[in-house]
Amino acid sequence: MTESAPRRSPGRPSRASGSNGREAIVAAATAAFAEQGYDAVSLRSVARTAGVDPALIGHYFGGKPALFAACIALPFDPQEAIAALLAPGLPGLGERMVRFFLSVWDDPVSSPAFRGLVRGAASDETVADMLRQLLAATVIRQVGAVLDGPDAALRASLVGSQLVGLGFARYVVRLPALATASTDEVVALVAPTVQRYLSGA
Amino acid sequence: MTESAPRRSPGRPSRASGSNGREAIVAAATAAFAEQGYDAVSLRSVARTAGVDPALIGHYFGGKPALFAACIALPFDPQEAIAALLAPGLPGLGERMVRFFLSVWDDPVSSPAFRGLVRGAASDETVADMLRQLLAATVIRQVGAVLDGPDAALRASLVGSQLVGLGFARYVVRLPALATASTDEVVALVAPTVQRYLSGA
Repeated sequence: MTESAPRRSPGRPSRASGSNGREAIVAAATAAFAEQGYDAVSLRSVARTAGVDPALIGHYFGGKPALFAACIALPFDPQEAIAALLAPGLPGLGERMVRFFLSVWDDPVSSPAFRGLVRGAASDETVADMLRQLLAATVIRQVGAVLDGPDAALRASLVGSQLVGLGFARYVVRLPALATASTDEVVALVAPTVQRYLSGA
Repeated sequence: MTESAPRRSPGRPSRASGSNGREAIVAAATAAFAEQGYDAVSLRSVARTAGVDPALIGHYFGGKPALFAACIALPFDPQEAIAALLAPGLPGLGERMVRFFLSVWDDPVSSPAFRGLVRGAASDETVADMLRQLLAATVIRQVGAVLDGPDAALRASLVGSQLVGLGFARYVVRLPALATASTDEVVALVAPTVQRYLSGA
């Protein structure tokens, strides 16, 4: 039972509803995905932890994939975040993207979600699908749309490859020189890579 | 029972020895790691599949981690491969590394091993340790040794980050534009990234 889950009144189960119910479901599911892994999570037990009727999960999310996406997106809306990064234009976009990405991995709330996503994608085709769709809807589509050239989608995908590889090497495998480098050192070396993919130069 | 595993004579178990026994162990263990995942593999069942005494695994490998490393290294010796890539010198090294890395992922023998390594590293601290040690002994140490500058180890680690991220995005998550691009297209875009990390420019 998480702190934010509503208490049951004695005698009959309570029904959390509205945004409280949605929040309680996402909190319970995020903890469950992090602890048990994607496959092992049961929607019934998420509902029980959240103190809601299982049907409410269907109402808000339809099923496990969309619930998982909501959990991953918990600390920020990825489409809004990318839009904010894009707003000042192409110059400096590489640096803004690398800084934002590092801040997400360094955030104690979003870091376990990202780790779970990388782990899930490597071991489970459904999670790999979700990560592909998440990246397709954000980095590839939103970023690719502002890039020039016939290989814009390929270059946007390579931005994703460098960012995911950076997260994997620094936070999951923790290569010593990379894990101990400061944000500024990493940005100084990686931002030009991302900028070169973006500008196609 | 793999094709290369020695047959048992009726009545008593055979004892494979010498390089045949070692090869049979690695073949059996590679299949087991790919099918069952690192944690679930039992050395006793590997020995049974390979038709050898379990003590022979200890004799050759000491334990599961070194056996796993031997399986990952199966299609080539990573230290020899890196040495061969380095031999012609720094010019063109980025392109040679990207081409070699893609050829390993495209190889039907080594591809499942790489996928298992990425998957294992994301979910299991022991495998993450092994991948860190494998990268430390090859890319970071051998490549880092020929680079100039106080940040040579960091830049060598970033080479690793781009290569691992490329493998993850192209072969595991399979971002469409990247998964369908030709080797030459990928090399043309990614080799300059790797070369820039190598040269520190």
